[in-house]
Amino acid sequence: MTLLAESMPWLQSAAFAVVIPAGVHREEESNRGVANLLCDWVQRGCGDYDSRQFVEALDNLGVARGGGVSASHITFSGALLAEHLGSTLGIYADLVQRPHFLTDEFEDAKQVCFQELRALEDDLHQQAMITLRRQIYPDPWGWHPTGTPATVEALTPEVAQQFYDNWMRPDETIISVAGNFDWDQLRDHVAALFGDWKAKPGQKSYLGSKLPEYVHIPFDSSQTHVALGFDSVPVSDPDFYQARAAIGIMSDGMSSRLFSEVREKRGLCYTVYASCHSLKEQGSVLAYAGTSTERAQETLDVMLQQFNELPQGVQQDELTRLKARFKSGIVMQQESSSSRASSMAGDWYHLGRIRTMDELAKTVDEITVDTINAYLQKSPPSHYRVTTIGAKKLEVPSGISSSDA
Amino acid sequence: MTLLAESMPWLQSAAFAVVIPAGVHREEESNRGVANLLCDWVQRGCGDYDSRQFVEALDNLGVARGGGVSASHITFSGALLAEHLGSTLGIYADLVQRPHFLTDEFEDAKQVCFQELRALEDDLHQQAMITLRRQIYPDPWGWHPTGTPATVEALTPEVAQQFYDNWMRPDETIISVAGNFDWDQLRDHVAALFGDWKAKPGQKSYLGSKLPEYVHIPFDSSQTHVALGFDSVPVSDPDFYQARAAIGIMSDGMSSRLFSEVREKRGLCYTVYASCHSLKEQGSVLAYAGTSTERAQETLDVMLQQFNELPQGVQQDELTRLKARFKSGIVMQQESSSSRASSMAGDWYHLGRIRTMDELAKTVDEITVDTINAYLQKSPPSHYRVTTIGAKKLEVPSGISSSDA
Repeated sequence: MTLLAESMPWLQSAAFAVVIPAGVHREEESNRGVANLLCDWVQRGCGDYDSRQFVEALDNLGVARGGGVSASHITFSGALLAEHLGSTLGIYADLVQRPHFLTDEFEDAKQVCFQELRALEDDLHQQAMITLRRQIYPDPWGWHPTGTPATVEALTPEVAQQFYDNWMRPDETIISVAGNFDWDQLRDHVAALFGDWKAKPGQKSYLGSKLPEYVHIPFDSSQTHVALGFDSVPVSDPDFYQARAAIGIMSDGMSSRLFSEVREKRGLCYTVYASCHSLKEQGSVLAYAGTSTERAQETLDVMLQQFNELPQGVQQDELTRLKARFKSGIVMQQESSSSRASSMAGDWYHLGRIRTMDELAKTVDEITVDTINAYLQKSPPSHYRVTTIGAKKLEVPSGISSSDA
Repeated sequence: MTLLAESMPWLQSAAFAVVIPAGVHREEESNRGVANLLCDWVQRGCGDYDSRQFVEALDNLGVARGGGVSASHITFSGALLAEHLGSTLGIYADLVQRPHFLTDEFEDAKQVCFQELRALEDDLHQQAMITLRRQIYPDPWGWHPTGTPATVEALTPEVAQQFYDNWMRPDETIISVAGNFDWDQLRDHVAALFGDWKAKPGQKSYLGSKLPEYVHIPFDSSQTHVALGFDSVPVSDPDFYQARAAIGIMSDGMSSRLFSEVREKRGLCYTVYASCHSLKEQGSVLAYAGTSTERAQETLDVMLQQFNELPQGVQQDELTRLKARFKSGIVMQQESSSSRASSMAGDWYHLGRIRTMDELAKTVDEITVDTINAYLQKSPPSHYRVTTIGAKKLEVPSGISSSDA
């Protein structure tokens, strides 16, 4: 286990993230959805707290809770008054090491997972992005944490407890704290709370396949959801910031290319974006536009055209604007304990070290039009994956294999 | 015009909100949706900037933009490096006083408004809440800013410019700034930028009717969206914090009644909440649950039961937890320039003055179980309004008039 901490003594608050390497990528076909269910189940009784006492204890401490399950991790996070940091970490120490695993609580947790699945059914934007990830990343890395109704139905308390035994472990767990705290006290407190957490051997992980390159999900609506993605570099790659800057020029700010070309000039959609997504060893660009069915083909075509034209080069004025946005972002991250706690955990996972704000600023300073364009020459957007949800299937570039969902 | 400012000298950032009393409540049947369209149109060229130069200028300053249109206001807001505050306010001074009002830009803005409407069509949670507001507040106060496809289609440049002439005016406009700035400099700069903005007479506002008390919108899905609301007090009412605390006990935190009874114990839904909403002279409680169609009736029944039982009294342990959450919230608001700028503008609009953090903390300290229960005895939840979107109409309490949408 690694404890990361950054002091922000001008704050009265603190934020923490407990980041456990028991994400969806540890699942298999036989227990798909288990990380998400486990994340709920362990909160229904642990240590001296029953289910009700657990939520009451955290509410009594005024903890604004966050966290959830991703491909990589189960994360428990929160922001709170600095004086309550120690007690709050104590509750999470119980949660990860001493869950009660009561069977009737398991059934309640499962019901919440079913409801989460149902709520997602109506969210077509999310559905498109969930499908896109499965076209880019192999199972289980591309799976959404909710699983499917059938896989959640099949989960048993034994399966969930086995997953806990295998993967909820101090090895590679990160606890990240930012805000107002005393380092010596924090270090000793965390050592006392988590020092007895036993390492576990883990297991070989499953690796499956991806979805076809074009997936169309028929849906009777006047709106069509277009998701478009392609492979890129992960955060740990030396070229990551070149890729990130190129996508920033495509999508960050109202003067960005996608916003300008797809929304402002052509009025094709209300929402359009592209973002860099990174697993530990694989990265991607994930883009989306929600548009009317009659203009969906044009929307996809313009998005593809914009990505295809990107290797022709970015301009100095575009980069100047992007750097101004990056610099604002760095300063604002530095002013928020929650952002900082989460960024530090991300740095440790992806890079094995923490970047200071000065280092981030220097990295941004060193990006030039030439470095971005050299990267784009070497790694132009290609091998697109497309998901559409709507009334009509679209024409996709030749070479993209297709299937109806 | 009023300039509000709170210094947070430990920050490198600043945040601002320009809050103009030209919200949806100034619209009529004949120009419904115009505030939202105007908000887009004025950003497409003003002062020395054409449409493109405007977004480039703000991106060059690294402004993270916010804002939008509400029942009360058109708001332009942003967070940025403190050193760029003056230049950024200069751009917004052009925007409110010197928009270009070019006709072809009007058509582009209209296209974006259509796309926004279409994107909303698929968001049934939002649709339910949009309908609920129209059951509680009379037109135009209950209207959603997007209008309808027919009303947006009918808008012309002349209509939008007339709305600007009538309502986009310094009278009652609030500029709120929080963060790192020099007060003398800021005051003089704002005076120079906005000093010549001419007051305008305004017009008599339209006041229409509400939707029926139960509205069911048939939709073929396994999910049903349940929105439930009733009248409450506005922020300016001396009882507001009693009402707010009662609803906090219903919905703030995982130990709250709705979360516990509807989601955790019965597994009826993934999302359930209730919140206090306030216009200037009228307030309401707006609640929501998204659930499966077969459990929708039970979900509505449990929500109603929880509200009906509220006047039987809240408990000390519930209030203790809620106060811990309120106190965390006050501290975190004080640490964020954006939150503070937005809260100050809200205070000025609702109360005509700014509450300090100390005053807010004192208000929270003075809430007791007895003060909440006395309020609930006097003003129990009643006269419910219900919207459902889903496959089946639900049974609603007797006395609620109904219509199918």
